[in-house]
Amino acid sequence: MVNEFYKEMTGKESVIRQFFDFARARAAEKGPDSVFNFSIGNPSVPAPDSFRDAIIDITEKGDPVKIHGYSPTLGQDSTKKCIADSLNRRFGMNYEAKHIFPTSGAAGALSHALRVVTKPGDTVLTFAPYFPEYGPYVNGTGAELKVVPADYDTFQINFEKFEEMLNENVSAVLINSPNNPSGIVYTTETIQRLADILMAKQNEYGHEIFLITDEPYREIVFEGVDSPFPSKFYDNSICCYSFSKSLSLPGERIGYMAVNPAAKDADYLVPMAGQVSRFTGHNCPTALMQLAIERVIDETSDLSIYERNAKLLYDALTEIGYKVVKPLGTFYMMPRVPDRNASDNGSTGNTDVSTLRDANEWCWKAARELGLITVPGDSFQCPGHFRISYCVPTEMIEKAIPLFKEAYNF
Amino acid sequence: MVNEFYKEMTGKESVIRQFFDFARARAAEKGPDSVFNFSIGNPSVPAPDSFRDAIIDITEKGDPVKIHGYSPTLGQDSTKKCIADSLNRRFGMNYEAKHIFPTSGAAGALSHALRVVTKPGDTVLTFAPYFPEYGPYVNGTGAELKVVPADYDTFQINFEKFEEMLNENVSAVLINSPNNPSGIVYTTETIQRLADILMAKQNEYGHEIFLITDEPYREIVFEGVDSPFPSKFYDNSICCYSFSKSLSLPGERIGYMAVNPAAKDADYLVPMAGQVSRFTGHNCPTALMQLAIERVIDETSDLSIYERNAKLLYDALTEIGYKVVKPLGTFYMMPRVPDRNASDNGSTGNTDVSTLRDANEWCWKAARELGLITVPGDSFQCPGHFRISYCVPTEMIEKAIPLFKEAYNF
Repeated sequence: MVNEFYKEMTGKESVIRQFFDFARARAAEKGPDSVFNFSIGNPSVPAPDSFRDAIIDITEKGDPVKIHGYSPTLGQDSTKKCIADSLNRRFGMNYEAKHIFPTSGAAGALSHALRVVTKPGDTVLTFAPYFPEYGPYVNGTGAELKVVPADYDTFQINFEKFEEMLNENVSAVLINSPNNPSGIVYTTETIQRLADILMAKQNEYGHEIFLITDEPYREIVFEGVDSPFPSKFYDNSICCYSFSKSLSLPGERIGYMAVNPAAKDADYLVPMAGQVSRFTGHNCPTALMQLAIERVIDETSDLSIYERNAKLLYDALTEIGYKVVKPLGTFYMMPRVPDRNASDNGSTGNTDVSTLRDANEWCWKAARELGLITVPGDSFQCPGHFRISYCVPTEMIEKAIPLFKEAYNF
Repeated sequence: MVNEFYKEMTGKESVIRQFFDFARARAAEKGPDSVFNFSIGNPSVPAPDSFRDAIIDITEKGDPVKIHGYSPTLGQDSTKKCIADSLNRRFGMNYEAKHIFPTSGAAGALSHALRVVTKPGDTVLTFAPYFPEYGPYVNGTGAELKVVPADYDTFQINFEKFEEMLNENVSAVLINSPNNPSGIVYTTETIQRLADILMAKQNEYGHEIFLITDEPYREIVFEGVDSPFPSKFYDNSICCYSFSKSLSLPGERIGYMAVNPAAKDADYLVPMAGQVSRFTGHNCPTALMQLAIERVIDETSDLSIYERNAKLLYDALTEIGYKVVKPLGTFYMMPRVPDRNASDNGSTGNTDVSTLRDANEWCWKAARELGLITVPGDSFQCPGHFRISYCVPTEMIEKAIPLFKEAYNF
């Protein structure tokens, strides 16, 4: 019988998708120059040449039966070791191959990590603004995602609300830094305070609370930023990574889950992830991508355009009058919807959400009247704000600045 | 908190794995010539050169931002159309691109197909002997797998038992032909009778019963065999395929789900599968493999060795005295464990399972005393039999025949 739950979902298009489709339709109707599409987080710079060379070299010289054969269930040993060594070198950790589980991107990593450290009925906490796909990722395990409201003035963690929402049913906490959609990076102070609270609560509740860290933007941080490696601060942690953004390979579905060697049952968690795969139909990332990643493990695409774009846009928007928490990584930022009547616009201090202006209405107006395509913050549980994805040509930003100026007065 | 269900599973090694590990340990101790490993179903012939050329050409000439970028959620349009056209040409179907959902191998296809046509609590029926991973594939959806006992004399469907087990709670039936582990191929008569029963029961119950056909061995059939395309016989069907076996690419995780255009809600099922991916963390097969498959869609590796091996082994084993249902495809066969005291050994007719000899004990004896590694049939719900995987060099079979002769007297 046709499953009604999934059937009903097909009718519900995401807001991001609606804006994306509008952009495409407008471009088709009025020409591509009529659209300034800041709605999609797709890397805009090419993968490094060394990645192309790796694919060709492996394919050309390898024994096809071996290179295209089944990967071991828990991943290629050489790939696992290479990832562990790289993390150890860069972050002073002591991962071994057995702690690394190669996955199909961060989505695969999260879907395994969530299943090995929660059970149906548990609560998983995450922090607004957050990536909306965490909803199905978590709820698909049978656990329930609850979202701690944002600290609107810094987009660091709202610890007051977090401590209110922590209880014995929480088995995992999910963070994403550098953050989509805000572009902020959690500071050492934030991570340390989070770790301290979790350690105290573990003792109080008498069970582990795992910290799952979603870090696909780890390499995209801007000069001088304090960007701590969260697993360094908390033993019961699983780091989830994807090479999609750092190497511009989102279609190649290659990432990993790295279990903190100091975690409870650290030696079991990767074999357990292998068992999870049997239930979800995962079966490892492709053999070719595992082999190729080994050759470019410490490289990235030329990511400098993202920082250049961030600075250009941040400076222009704040000059216009927009209130923006300065992005220090990723290729996103999350300005406040302008409201010249609001008393706190442009100021800092506690934000009363009920006073914020409706982002949906403002974003649609900017899209329809100016072809300026952004995404309202409500999808990220961040009302009154809008997301700009600036993984676009710098020239497009330059052309869009006068439009942002015009939209400021909407 | 660490999930105890998955943790407990890590301690339970599959029987196939135990035999495989024994083979590896023996080879390490006594040398590779001391082991005749017939336990693993891994293609032993290389992918065609055209596949290698496709990977290199796409990687060398493609725009990296495009070729490594995100695939659309429901798969690359060109890949979907190419697969649909190929199926239409070969099997007289009328698939369109919208009916095709590219997946990470057959595991991905099955995990999506099962979720779109069942709901938790439903029953899914399959037929012994069967691929044991169907257990987690089905049970991971919340539905329950029930296995119809084998027809031991033909390994076609045991229709008597099937009709006994059909009831209103059955929402899907899962078949695998050509079959792992038996090597048999369901005849047109079998498929037609199955379709007739399902159509009658759909009317009786007032709801659809979907037929999910797992067909990774579709291209590996031996000369002259009647190998029907099941979706041709039954509207509510989803064909699940992998290029792993036909193109010798099991590590590259590329396959698809093809929804019968005549199925109930045919236009919804692929978008629904896209929704399923959000809950399981699937997110499409790799972009590169989708593009590469288009270039080799109607090709296969040189599969002739499997037929040669099948004939050599079947003739030798039956001459020794083994009772074997003749394999007509795949690279498996499933002889009966020899029992010179059994009255029906070598005969046809209804098999009383309770009189069959213990396969586990016999297989371990052959492994330990002769280095002859096969897998007992119990894992496939086929007691009293053992599986031989003959995707091995022909020379190894020639050397192993005297050992099968010796083991016949165990």
